[in-house]
Amino acid sequence: MPSASSQSPQAIRGAFLDFVNDPFYVSDAESVRYIPDGLLIVEKGAIADFGSYADLQAKYSQVEIVTYPGKIIMPGFIDTHIHYPQSEMIAAYGEQLLEWLNKYTFPTERKFRDKAYAQTIASLFLDELLKNGTTTALVFATVHPQSVDAFFEEASRRNLRMISGKVLMDRNAPDYLTDTPETAYEESKQLIQKWHNNGRLLYAITPRFAITSTHEQLRLAGKLLQEFPDVYLHTHLSENLKEVEWVAELFPECKNYLDVYDRAGLVGEKSVFAHGIHLSEDEFKRLSAAKAALSFCPTSNLFLGSGLFKLHKAKSLNQPIKVGLGTDVGGGTSFSMLHTLNEAYKVAQLQTQSLSAFKALFLATLGGARALSLEDKLGNFDPGKEADFVVLDLQATSIMATRTGGLSTRLAQGSTETELREELAEKVFGMMMLGDDRAIHAVYIAGELVHR
Amino acid sequence: MPSASSQSPQAIRGAFLDFVNDPFYVSDAESVRYIPDGLLIVEKGAIADFGSYADLQAKYSQVEIVTYPGKIIMPGFIDTHIHYPQSEMIAAYGEQLLEWLNKYTFPTERKFRDKAYAQTIASLFLDELLKNGTTTALVFATVHPQSVDAFFEEASRRNLRMISGKVLMDRNAPDYLTDTPETAYEESKQLIQKWHNNGRLLYAITPRFAITSTHEQLRLAGKLLQEFPDVYLHTHLSENLKEVEWVAELFPECKNYLDVYDRAGLVGEKSVFAHGIHLSEDEFKRLSAAKAALSFCPTSNLFLGSGLFKLHKAKSLNQPIKVGLGTDVGGGTSFSMLHTLNEAYKVAQLQTQSLSAFKALFLATLGGARALSLEDKLGNFDPGKEADFVVLDLQATSIMATRTGGLSTRLAQGSTETELREELAEKVFGMMMLGDDRAIHAVYIAGELVHR
Repeated sequence: MPSASSQSPQAIRGAFLDFVNDPFYVSDAESVRYIPDGLLIVEKGAIADFGSYADLQAKYSQVEIVTYPGKIIMPGFIDTHIHYPQSEMIAAYGEQLLEWLNKYTFPTERKFRDKAYAQTIASLFLDELLKNGTTTALVFATVHPQSVDAFFEEASRRNLRMISGKVLMDRNAPDYLTDTPETAYEESKQLIQKWHNNGRLLYAITPRFAITSTHEQLRLAGKLLQEFPDVYLHTHLSENLKEVEWVAELFPECKNYLDVYDRAGLVGEKSVFAHGIHLSEDEFKRLSAAKAALSFCPTSNLFLGSGLFKLHKAKSLNQPIKVGLGTDVGGGTSFSMLHTLNEAYKVAQLQTQSLSAFKALFLATLGGARALSLEDKLGNFDPGKEADFVVLDLQATSIMATRTGGLSTRLAQGSTETELREELAEKVFGMMMLGDDRAIHAVYIAGELVHR
Repeated sequence: MPSASSQSPQAIRGAFLDFVNDPFYVSDAESVRYIPDGLLIVEKGAIADFGSYADLQAKYSQVEIVTYPGKIIMPGFIDTHIHYPQSEMIAAYGEQLLEWLNKYTFPTERKFRDKAYAQTIASLFLDELLKNGTTTALVFATVHPQSVDAFFEEASRRNLRMISGKVLMDRNAPDYLTDTPETAYEESKQLIQKWHNNGRLLYAITPRFAITSTHEQLRLAGKLLQEFPDVYLHTHLSENLKEVEWVAELFPECKNYLDVYDRAGLVGEKSVFAHGIHLSEDEFKRLSAAKAALSFCPTSNLFLGSGLFKLHKAKSLNQPIKVGLGTDVGGGTSFSMLHTLNEAYKVAQLQTQSLSAFKALFLATLGGARALSLEDKLGNFDPGKEADFVVLDLQATSIMATRTGGLSTRLAQGSTETELREELAEKVFGMMMLGDDRAIHAVYIAGELVHR
């Protein structure tokens, strides 16, 4: 449970939007929860009560209320795939995945041997996340254990629910960035014991990808996952065609890319695979059966020219896969989940699919929580959950105001539920296409205002 | 020649970046002009002198200097395809081109029958352009002549070099938005006589696209273009596959989409065709031979799922076509040329091409000027040209500062020219990937500061 400095109840009043079910599988009426004039009660960092102001006001008449007129309050955004050490090399020019790793990523990650440096970048990274309304993330560190310590120390100072882990790489990477199967196992084990469930922090065993781990290293990662079944497995899968070809050469005995991980015991309910662009039918099937998650990283996929993620395939009713969204900074060129939704929409459009604002925002909140098996703690305003949320300004820039102008007040008034929802859909779609960090009016972590 | 209120010379000192040739065809060394400490002398709205501060300081010792330390000054951005009436419907949800026109665009454009309304939106539109560093644009109005009057009046008040025209549509559009071949001809003619070369304003004959004009209307548009060979032709071409199919059905006698325009005499040196995504080899060839221009609108092409423009094909050495960039608001979801470059890079990456920052910025400046046959007036800092320019802040946001931090001072010092250029390329690439309207520190029109 998060500890908040203020122990007395707090109340936030405003328009609240969250999801109680998955709009890919049920109607908007059954999945979207919109309360035009709602009240959120926070106690000891958690949501104590939630409902319409009219229903709750009498019960909490003694509690001081903070009101956000004209804004929309949503659960904090969840980024299911990002690399904190790549913050400073965001938007590096001209390459696709494999060349980009060698030219930019590896030299940058080398610096994280120095813990003080790692701490500086971790701090900057977390500030950027919060500024963009992202309150939880699944985060790559580097191969250096001290890079994980630095990250978790900074996350802990901010009382954030964060998941990270030491990168495992014992081949096809520069000497200065490689470990061995044994050191990878030992160092990860120590880090798990030190950080997993330490406050709000959680650990992910993090082989970079099949190319940079030997079979032996993957096997030991699987052993570790068996010893600590509660920790995550976080890696990359099928991002780039050349990568997929190389994996096939390196693991000729495996029937496909996912099978490399599967044979090592790395495909389970707490496994999160970034990208999954070029998956075969068998791989989709296996991911669904294993209840593993995919992290869809549209900005990165476009920036690195990796390809178009088949979202509607992954979210099909008959073979559902848990999907979250990832910025994938530094392959992604923005920390903003709103930008990420904008790009997700485009990836869908290029495949003649439309991604509605509700589906998109679901992926960024409750969908992300489900992908990270954190649905019991995060993702919506259900009482008992942790009080991480964002206050969104739909008129943050002049063009946003032009596009959504005049709706705020109408939204707060009468209308039928369907009308309200349709107007809201249009309005939040404008926000996701036009918004950036300026639309993040305020951010609360465990009920405390941390960014405004 | 633009008239500026201040008749005495002005001097701007700072780092200047522009292009003296096309980096798609010659090396960066031959095309990029970077002056780390330069001086720009403006007189009567035009560039009177330009060079390094060291060379020019003595000559202009009496002129008061405005200095922009740590910034980069570039020619104003040129947007070669945008719809001002669609400003308010930017980022409309869920459709591809033809449905999107019917559902959102036509009902919105209907409002421009009201001149006062048109004036309000034109004003807002021009403010957005300037805020984003765009100083010249080729702009669709609506079918209503008064929408053109409203736009030109507002552009004139701001002393902007703008090109626009009345939309021609005599079929496949709602009654409330159609004209006839004859009224289209007559109204366009009157507007040409009223506005073309009125101050800095220029006229474009503007059939929406082949689908919404009969053969007779296109023929009369061609007649008008013959009578006024100095005006522009601005239309859409081969944006969406369904559109291309429909054109083939409507004009079975034409060998391809471009041929529809060609037979009407609409394909020439002052013709600008937006999109051109699905062009045949014959069409590429004809565009090159006719010295016509294409407007590449990457954000719109992704947002509407239209497809990927073949930039490297259009810019091939053996069959070159003039190419400018367009935001295509409201099909495009941003007024920002920097965002547009960001998306252009992604469109190239998806085709395993890399678009360098210099090539991209060329398209947004001198390339745009060439596409609009305005190279004698705009596009770089050559003396005699009009003094429309922007001051860019490469550290406008915290993440931009992180990415480009520390370079500013080094850029201003020694180093070899090649080192300087490489560092600059990396820096401005960061700006184009991470920047937005916040990176536009100041905008000058005909030497006058109009936005900061």
